Amino acid sequence: MIDVLKVAILGATGMAGQWAVRLLSRHPWFEINALAASERSVGKRYASAAHWYIESSMPRDAASMEVVRVDSKPVRESDLIISNLPSEVAMRVEENLVKRGLVVVSTASAHRMEPRVPLINPEINADHLALIDEQKRVEKWDGALVTTPNCTVAILSLSLKPILDNFGIESIFVTTMQSLSGAGFPGVASLEVVDNVLPFIRDEEEKVEEEALKILGALNKPSSIKISATCCRVPVLHGHLESVFVKTSEKVEVKDFVDAFENFVGEPQRLKLPTAPEKPIIVRGEPNRPQPRLDRMAGGGMSVVVGRVRKDEALGGVKYVVLGHNLVRGASGCAVLTAELLKVKGYL
Amino acid sequence: MIDVLKVAILGATGMAGQWAVRLLSRHPWFEINALAASERSVGKRYASAAHWYIESSMPRDAASMEVVRVDSKPVRESDLIISNLPSEVAMRVEENLVKRGLVVVSTASAHRMEPRVPLINPEINADHLALIDEQKRVEKWDGALVTTPNCTVAILSLSLKPILDNFGIESIFVTTMQSLSGAGFPGVASLEVVDNVLPFIRDEEEKVEEEALKILGALNKPSSIKISATCCRVPVLHGHLESVFVKTSEKVEVKDFVDAFENFVGEPQRLKLPTAPEKPIIVRGEPNRPQPRLDRMAGGGMSVVVGRVRKDEALGGVKYVVLGHNLVRGASGCAVLTAELLKVKGYL
Amino acid sequence: MIDVLKVAILGATGMAGQWAVRLLSRHPWFEINALAASERSVGKRYASAAHWYIESSMPRDAASMEVVRVDSKPVRESDLIISNLPSEVAMRVEENLVKRGLVVVSTASAHRMEPRVPLINPEINADHLALIDEQKRVEKWDGALVTTPNCTVAILSLSLKPILDNFGIESIFVTTMQSLSGAGFPGVASLEVVDNVLPFIRDEEEKVEEEALKILGALNKPSSIKISATCCRVPVLHGHLESVFVKTSEKVEVKDFVDAFENFVGEPQRLKLPTAPEKPIIVRGEPNRPQPRLDRMAGGGMSVVVGRVRKDEALGGVKYVVLGHNLVRGASGCAVLTAELLKVKGYL
Amino acid sequence: MIDVLKVAILGATGMAGQWAVRLLSRHPWFEINALAASERSVGKRYASAAHWYIESSMPRDAASMEVVRVDSKPVRESDLIISNLPSEVAMRVEENLVKRGLVVVSTASAHRMEPRVPLINPEINADHLALIDEQKRVEKWDGALVTTPNCTVAILSLSLKPILDNFGIESIFVTTMQSLSGAGFPGVASLEVVDNVLPFIRDEEEKVEEEALKILGALNKPSSIKISATCCRVPVLHGHLESVFVKTSEKVEVKDFVDAFENFVGEPQRLKLPTAPEKPIIVRGEPNRPQPRLDRMAGGGMSVVVGRVRKDEALGGVKYVVLGHNLVRGASGCAVLTAELLKVKGYL
Repeated sequence: MIDVLKVAILGATGMAGQWAVRLLSRHPWFEINALAASERSVGKRYASAAHWYIESSMPRDAASMEVVRVDSKPVRESDLIISNLPSEVAMRVEENLVKRGLVVVSTASAHRMEPRVPLINPEINADHLALIDEQKRVEKWDGALVTTPNCTVAILSLSLKPILDNFGIESIFVTTMQSLSGAGFPGVASLEVVDNVLPFIRDEEEKVEEEALKILGALNKPSSIKISATCCRVPVLHGHLESVFVKTSEKVEVKDFVDAFENFVGEPQRLKLPTAPEKPIIVRGEPNRPQPRLDRMAGGGMSVVVGRVRKDEALGGVKYVVLGHNLVRGASGCAVLTAELLKVKGYL
Repeated sequence: MIDVLKVAILGATGMAGQWAVRLLSRHPWFEINALAASERSVGKRYASAAHWYIESSMPRDAASMEVVRVDSKPVRESDLIISNLPSEVAMRVEENLVKRGLVVVSTASAHRMEPRVPLINPEINADHLALIDEQKRVEKWDGALVTTPNCTVAILSLSLKPILDNFGIESIFVTTMQSLSGAGFPGVASLEVVDNVLPFIRDEEEKVEEEALKILGALNKPSSIKISATCCRVPVLHGHLESVFVKTSEKVEVKDFVDAFENFVGEPQRLKLPTAPEKPIIVRGEPNRPQPRLDRMAGGGMSVVVGRVRKDEALGGVKYVVLGHNLVRGASGCAVLTAELLKVKGYL
Repeated sequence: MIDVLKVAILGATGMAGQWAVRLLSRHPWFEINALAASERSVGKRYASAAHWYIESSMPRDAASMEVVRVDSKPVRESDLIISNLPSEVAMRVEENLVKRGLVVVSTASAHRMEPRVPLINPEINADHLALIDEQKRVEKWDGALVTTPNCTVAILSLSLKPILDNFGIESIFVTTMQSLSGAGFPGVASLEVVDNVLPFIRDEEEKVEEEALKILGALNKPSSIKISATCCRVPVLHGHLESVFVKTSEKVEVKDFVDAFENFVGEPQRLKLPTAPEKPIIVRGEPNRPQPRLDRMAGGGMSVVVGRVRKDEALGGVKYVVLGHNLVRGASGCAVLTAELLKVKGYL
Repeated sequence: MIDVLKVAILGATGMAGQWAVRLLSRHPWFEINALAASERSVGKRYASAAHWYIESSMPRDAASMEVVRVDSKPVRESDLIISNLPSEVAMRVEENLVKRGLVVVSTASAHRMEPRVPLINPEINADHLALIDEQKRVEKWDGALVTTPNCTVAILSLSLKPILDNFGIESIFVTTMQSLSGAGFPGVASLEVVDNVLPFIRDEEEKVEEEALKILGALNKPSSIKISATCCRVPVLHGHLESVFVKTSEKVEVKDFVDAFENFVGEPQRLKLPTAPEKPIIVRGEPNRPQPRLDRMAGGGMSVVVGRVRKDEALGGVKYVVLGHNLVRGASGCAVLTAELLKVKGYL
């Protein structure tokens, strides 16, 4: 392809950054143009700057690249920025890049809830990219800023979309069992979590209750679903498991519910985007699935896996569990898929 | 004390049985008269028959006892039987013993839901022991059969009791994160659960939804609370953590809720029974408590620990997490406390 | 290729069996002709008979095959048998098949130490296959029986071979930290090994001390190296880590030692066999490698990874750690590679 | 008792510091006079400054104390200092306190190898306290500085002492499987060690090889035993397990070896010091013991547990595994026991 686009990855040495490197290293449309990280890593080869933790080898091309500053020339000369910066750094850096005319897709939480910044989970709300036009009109930005959701929200909202479309949703009660990599590295101390569960993740419940409504809502109007979350950390490396109780607007049978999950596709599937999983939602019928270790890489980490779909008599709804890979669907995979949307929609 | 009662422990080599041995080994009212187990163990000294897993040493007196059959003479000559038999064995054995005039307190599920068998969580429904009189009248049993709840239910129902009494309960949504010892030994294979969560425990959700109503109800009338449960297994050795969403009948403030938990005492506290914890419910204010490893031995394993009490706007109620030791409050501790009630109430 | 050989896998539902299925499912020379297992599985489709635990999906062709008996017609009509049977079953079944003219490569321990049965770790002692001629001459077998080593031995002996060839070995002290999957399924109970190490694995040390000498020795003359082993189980899913102290016959520098590891290739590399890893021994220079989770899949699970090579002043030798995948190099991968040798050498 | 001594604990909020608090909170001879820690904690109550991780509750008296600076008046007015400072801080602080006339027992590595500083494992080398006289004579110190060994060394050397005394030792090969709490808090990231082993602990092997010789040697003459160590980190909360191969000077039978372990007592046992375990070395005959989770609290955490004692034909010696609690015998327990020695010997 002639017009391969040059991509800079910010926060390239972190856990989400590494997944961005992996997902882009053989991408048909994009090529890695710059790997940027904090001062500690600048000037080193990526191979020595990044403590690579993904179970396959570090891509060779990336390994030999020199890590640069987030405001360096190779970053500014890229066609697209994928930002995995920590939120407080993102707050400072991303808007600057956008004002200089760059297109930034960010997994950071810094700008997610700003009214003119689209928060995209591609199968759900590709149409929210229209907010970019408001960015140009109102903010006078030359570039564009697009965000992707918190990992827990990315997984949950994907499972909620077909329910919402088919049966309506009144309220949701969700308890999450989240993996260690969701806290980054070094993140959770081993002494805290061996033979233990932590029933609290700072700011997480607020994000779940807030971001999901923006994603599942209309362009400038958040959904009015009532969402209540309790978020826990479990000794699992990757993969967030979520136990969901849904009160639907209409009465619904388990079979219809399963059909809605299984038939669901979104814009990325219709457009056959390279990173789109064939099935965004996979339903497993075995009673003891999904399990984080066995199912987190379903659809290359881009699918969520639903199981234990049961009628909930107490609520007049349905309950199920859903699992997704917090670093792929929940972070870098979602960003890359969003970037693919941007290209196809003419924003790149 | 002159009238120390002789107790036989059935299923003495298993995990719950070992806790019964420990709890009774220095008990002021009871002394161990017989340790009974399956054929495999009969004739061996308890020290070699039981693979002792409790972190303090095996009590010396018990260690030197010879394991006997469940229908042996020392069992039949005991004043009280604590049964930790597997349910299918319990079904066969317990009723026989009761017909012979023995008083059996059983942690097995076999007889829990039978209408004339009390299912006792002592702080909640000591009054249900009155069913023993029906046993004598209708079944013509000389002895008595009393059961204690499933571990998850014992913990959950204890936390629900003060809510029910103070504010009423309409419905409950609970997701559990249950420990490995809840499955007994060998139980869950390590290959299933390292770096993993299992979103299913056979028959567990049914028990939660059913037993809680019997315990929280009146003598012959189950409660009409709607309960919906999803039960998961996490890589934790002991201690079940439960994430609870409660829709109360009345509007309630977090402060009232916490007060209700903290002020709660039951019959065992009023009677100052030896195994009764000072506070059946301990509320922790830190955001990241309770945790299984740090809190499971609260009150000697007999208290449940509640944390993260928050208003639930979505449900018009309250949400919280509760933790308890599945083998103590959830099994043998509950049985011993029930036995103490039986004695004080004149059934022994 | 015209002459694809038909392979039957015995014990196909177990952990090693599943790896055999995976390794053979896209093999250029072999195709799976029969999947055999115990009575419990016979008649079921492989997809429902095997509790698939490998992190990629079950190969589709295998999934739809019906599991057959170990003495069924499709087994008997195969060109090659890969046996992953439990040892006591192997003892009964394998010799029968060989007498009927079949070629069996077995990962079971049953026949490993028999004098006329080659015990093959392909990079080390491909020449031992000559024992097959003795089988035909002395035992009058029409078929052939070849075994592969215990998992710990397969990994250890591979690392010892270049040391032995270059510097001679007088004695070895090895402490192993072995993974859970080495015990099969269900194997080690989770309650035994969470927050724990087990300093004992039944019969393992004897196998290490005995089998290594056969593999590293000449055709009918075991090596006279003195080997002393202590074998432990650690809470790791896959990958055995071994801490090795070697007293070499000659004085040796670390650099020479590392060179010997890095330059080592065996018959499978020279013959470019399909399952042969490019480098049987990979040396990592970082101080904190190899690690089971990060390195077990090196070379597709067929390489061993050596690290921490240091001079040992106390012993007048060298110490290092070595890691390998117990189910691939340590079982099914070793068997498939041995089968490839058999074909190239004309035994198939 | 009239002359209860006032003790200041430095580094009181860390893991070893917490054990010092626990061990001293009901001590018959000592009472806690000051809890000192870094600036971050100064001025807070101990209850809120220390993230208490020991499974029993924080002692009430300590909980309400205010944390002070390491050079504050209550520290300077104490009769004894137990220092659990990080080594780089210890280097600065401890000598100053000693020059001011204070007696310091330190678990830090800073001064352990200085020729006039005794390195004490009380059962082994109580006589090394005589170095304090040299401190006074040569260094002109008014106070005294005594150190206790690295955790791995404390456990290993205790097991070696009776072997050395009875049979002589030529060389030792030891592979350790060390717990997470040995790295302090936060220490090892959970992402590094779930489903993993780390085959490296910085500076640990050097300490093992060096400190053991000082402890097992004569007053001013280190032992000439050859020691070679490989140190690994395993996913265990507390308790270091060590696999030891010993080449004895004399031929020895397993029985004699076991007898030597079992009969061993040291000065603390003869003096009946309050923190001395009845048996410093406990031998377990079961094949699968010691195990960290089951045995780390033996003797209140002050005993080491030996198992798997076997003849080692390869080495002409014996092999065994030994386990000890790295924070009790390996740190604060060793310091408290040393302080008791100091008192009895008239140094306090």
